[in-house]
Amino acid sequence: MAEEQGIHNKELAKVPEPTLRRLPWYLSNVKLLKQRGERYVSSTQISKGTNIDASQIAKDLSYVNISGRTRVGYEIDALIEVLESFLGFTDIHKAFLFGVGSLGGALLQDSGLKHFGLEIVAAFDINPNLIGTKLNDIPIYHSDTFLEKMKEYNVQIGVLTVPIEIAQPISDKMIEGGIKAIWNFTPFRIRVPENIVVQNTSLYAHLAVMFNRLNFNEEK
Amino acid sequence: MAEEQGIHNKELAKVPEPTLRRLPWYLSNVKLLKQRGERYVSSTQISKGTNIDASQIAKDLSYVNISGRTRVGYEIDALIEVLESFLGFTDIHKAFLFGVGSLGGALLQDSGLKHFGLEIVAAFDINPNLIGTKLNDIPIYHSDTFLEKMKEYNVQIGVLTVPIEIAQPISDKMIEGGIKAIWNFTPFRIRVPENIVVQNTSLYAHLAVMFNRLNFNEEK
Repeated sequence: MAEEQGIHNKELAKVPEPTLRRLPWYLSNVKLLKQRGERYVSSTQISKGTNIDASQIAKDLSYVNISGRTRVGYEIDALIEVLESFLGFTDIHKAFLFGVGSLGGALLQDSGLKHFGLEIVAAFDINPNLIGTKLNDIPIYHSDTFLEKMKEYNVQIGVLTVPIEIAQPISDKMIEGGIKAIWNFTPFRIRVPENIVVQNTSLYAHLAVMFNRLNFNEEK
Repeated sequence: MAEEQGIHNKELAKVPEPTLRRLPWYLSNVKLLKQRGERYVSSTQISKGTNIDASQIAKDLSYVNISGRTRVGYEIDALIEVLESFLGFTDIHKAFLFGVGSLGGALLQDSGLKHFGLEIVAAFDINPNLIGTKLNDIPIYHSDTFLEKMKEYNVQIGVLTVPIEIAQPISDKMIEGGIKAIWNFTPFRIRVPENIVVQNTSLYAHLAVMFNRLNFNEEK
């Protein structure tokens, strides 16, 4: 399970990953109810909006520091605030991005990440046409200046969008330089020391699953 | 498990989702070995590169129509070809994108998706500044013209990158119009009929998991 979802250090984790993955669903559902004018929300209501058992929701929310009131449920503003903070969306986590190719460039353009706590402060590449330029106001530096820039910026997260053949060596370099968590968008399975967090987000693996299910439905 | 990974229709699926998610790892690893001049590859070699048990790899590859030879393993070119085709990366699947905001716009720029079999042929939005323009050569139409465009293009997949408050109504509209699979990038849990494929890819949920693990490692 931990392997499937790309998280190492399974044994260290307090909050189960499935819970962490469901909480953003509750958050978006609760935000929607707030927009509709609700002031309180119960796990039964969240259950209707998300198709998840109310008992599971109550269990998941027990990890978060909030308590509902009998009959009325959770105060909606407090729940949103507590969830956003618990999920880390209210703090800004600075990150470097490695590899300004098609996907890397696309991620630099996605200002939405900042609203969820991730700010890409600089990017690295070796393409001379990119070095010295900015994308969405984010400077692109030569990869060789990474260690120097680590001293300048306070960064713990590296976003990995390089070609697969350099995914491992670039990860090793990132870790040597002090990066503590790697958001790996490559379809390559990188190996890291135990104390380093890896989050795999392979859009291509998700595509493969979707295509397979689509074909299967067609052939029925 | 199926719920966590955002796939409905669990009972219909022949190939287990964990297998489908590991196959792209093998593919990228095998491509790398080919670049290094290898002509044959064994599951033991793939195991070294991916940290997955060789027996698991052999089991996963048994779903794919290829057989290895004792001592030498799999012929590398054949394995790449068979894997790419099995994963659906060699066919072009046309898609519409709904919601040209920050993330939607970023995905339109990611030409890499095309190399993995997904071609976004048109996008929809209601922003008058976007309608009639192109992004990365992809035309942006008014959402109202969706049904009309469904007749024009041969599309089965919809990429959902709208604000959460319209994620459900837009999904309903997509399905009414004939969309068979939704790639949901919103943090909202959409509900769909049984025969519709949903692939959830919430970057924000992945961020939440990464932030939590990072904090946990810091507090150790």
